[in-house]
Amino acid sequence: MDDVSYMQRALMLAEKGKGTTSPNPMVGTVIVKNGKIIAEGFHQKYGDKHAEIMAIDNASTSVEGATLYCNLEPCTGDIPEKKTPPCSQRIVKEKIKKVVIATLDPNPYVNGKGVEFLRQHHIQVDTGVLQPEATLLNEKYFTYIRLERPFIHLKIAQSLDGRIATSKGKSKWITNENALKKVHQLRSEYDAILVGINTVLQDNPSLDVRLSQGKNPFRIILDNNLMIPLDARIFNHSDPEKTLIFTFKPATDVKIKDLSGKGIQVVSLLSNDQPYLNLNEVMSFLAKSKISSVLVEGGGEVFTSFIKNRLFDKISFFIAPMMIGSGIQSIGDLGIDSLDEAFRLKNVRIEIIDQQALVEGYRDNGNIER
Amino acid sequence: MDDVSYMQRALMLAEKGKGTTSPNPMVGTVIVKNGKIIAEGFHQKYGDKHAEIMAIDNASTSVEGATLYCNLEPCTGDIPEKKTPPCSQRIVKEKIKKVVIATLDPNPYVNGKGVEFLRQHHIQVDTGVLQPEATLLNEKYFTYIRLERPFIHLKIAQSLDGRIATSKGKSKWITNENALKKVHQLRSEYDAILVGINTVLQDNPSLDVRLSQGKNPFRIILDNNLMIPLDARIFNHSDPEKTLIFTFKPATDVKIKDLSGKGIQVVSLLSNDQPYLNLNEVMSFLAKSKISSVLVEGGGEVFTSFIKNRLFDKISFFIAPMMIGSGIQSIGDLGIDSLDEAFRLKNVRIEIIDQQALVEGYRDNGNIER
Repeated sequence: MDDVSYMQRALMLAEKGKGTTSPNPMVGTVIVKNGKIIAEGFHQKYGDKHAEIMAIDNASTSVEGATLYCNLEPCTGDIPEKKTPPCSQRIVKEKIKKVVIATLDPNPYVNGKGVEFLRQHHIQVDTGVLQPEATLLNEKYFTYIRLERPFIHLKIAQSLDGRIATSKGKSKWITNENALKKVHQLRSEYDAILVGINTVLQDNPSLDVRLSQGKNPFRIILDNNLMIPLDARIFNHSDPEKTLIFTFKPATDVKIKDLSGKGIQVVSLLSNDQPYLNLNEVMSFLAKSKISSVLVEGGGEVFTSFIKNRLFDKISFFIAPMMIGSGIQSIGDLGIDSLDEAFRLKNVRIEIIDQQALVEGYRDNGNIER
Repeated sequence: MDDVSYMQRALMLAEKGKGTTSPNPMVGTVIVKNGKIIAEGFHQKYGDKHAEIMAIDNASTSVEGATLYCNLEPCTGDIPEKKTPPCSQRIVKEKIKKVVIATLDPNPYVNGKGVEFLRQHHIQVDTGVLQPEATLLNEKYFTYIRLERPFIHLKIAQSLDGRIATSKGKSKWITNENALKKVHQLRSEYDAILVGINTVLQDNPSLDVRLSQGKNPFRIILDNNLMIPLDARIFNHSDPEKTLIFTFKPATDVKIKDLSGKGIQVVSLLSNDQPYLNLNEVMSFLAKSKISSVLVEGGGEVFTSFIKNRLFDKISFFIAPMMIGSGIQSIGDLGIDSLDEAFRLKNVRIEIIDQQALVEGYRDNGNIER
């Protein structure tokens, strides 16, 4: 086996942490000695051992003189609020001979310092093996750290002619059960789901992951005038503190007090005479709350605002084989006059789910280079 | 080999006539004697020999006592304006023992009479072998004969959010070169291409098949007020009689005379105070002109009228991975209030062309059962 194969194995191990390491990245480690894998590890859960430490602790024989493969740069001791001892020190202490990594850690407290520390201690370090794959795997983490906002993924379920509901607002069901299962699986991979108040009023969703496995994400509602009914289904969760409502209403508002009393978080933003909540402010707030990824599920006005503000990294269209004609459009005015200005997607992937097409891709001129 | 295999071979032969037999169906024939194929034939071109005759003529040994496989019922002598001698008489004359067919001919002059004639002459006839496949192969012919109108196929090139052009009408190019090649290939399989006047004014298309092979189809333009410019690119064809313009302008109009002088066909329809040309009248006129299939290429108003009037059999969406936001929508008001009324597609097929999705299907509650 060569470097690429070992790194593939490390990436595979890393992926086992999907949905549980956030806001930490997914990391996997393979330790090789005399051409044999002698230990493996991965980061299982936020707050738990790092992959490198787990692998070293798991090794059945001494790791002295071995090569350690890891998809992310080993951490240093400089991170504030650090929960675990730094991996690079442990690697030095264990006299590992060589470290192969896929990407540097974008976290400025680590970025390049981990590699530097290892080299200062005479450990050979190779970087860049399977870098694109490693960046893609941790796209949420990279975006969160570099842009100080969550990774934003828009999920749109629509007809062929781009309608997300009839003119009367009915959207149950445009896409079918198998698409819905896929959506629930997607939800389980995100820290939070975000919808606008119209979606709550029209569909009264639970925003849970009942058709899949994994933890329920945070529920974020954009509700300028705090119109959400107190008996909305979204409040029927046993973890009310994971429901956040952003509004223009002042903190002194009586309804806010009612909601706070139930444990719901309500965040008052200044209106600045804008008709819409400032999405940059909302995203900054979420990032500060350690929410590193958001799945935006509608409705049309919300999608339009996010796209217009270039606040999205990925977008998924679930397209059902039907035409509705008039009705609520998935995306409204983006202020575009020419096709040159159209929002084009890159790294497009098309999947067929029953008779529905799932078209997904990344924002062109996006922030994460691959 | 069994009946199904021989019929598959007959269907394969039939398909060789694609694009050249219209308004006749595609027909293939295989003659089998003592378990061996002794002759094959197919209908090559409108006016040419029928498949059965070609096969019999091609046979190297006597066809007496043989079994003849044909995807369509052999014709009788009852068809008006018949160009060739009836196949069923020839089959009897050649003392063929058994005939296996996939479908009856929907043409009322033949329908069941061919089979009856053969049985009267003591030939064993089996029907229904690969009937669905045979009906699909000749879907244009079946629709044309049964409904006395052309098979109507809507072709829509749009963005993910259902826009066929920017708000300024620009549509070059939403889909890419490979999708365009596919469109030209599709054109070559249709008797006519139809567009609205807005598409002519905006895009000035040639409506030819330059990126593919095959004959140029008829060009049909819906032009209520005869606004088409005399120097439109669509007039640069060496066969001006294959350009038809439907209009509300009376036949006495000076511009009609100009166009007729160039060899263009202009058809004046009564307005009946309707804003749109009566599509049923247009389709009847085309059927009478032996146009058995039409590819409708836009624009949005034209698509909407055809769908609203339930005048379509098949629809193909070429979806490019971009969002335009405001702009011209592919499909406008269909008068639908609830999702139950939405136009759903059946027999959906999804193809990936580069990074574009081609989603196509048939109108549910369509006219041809499969």
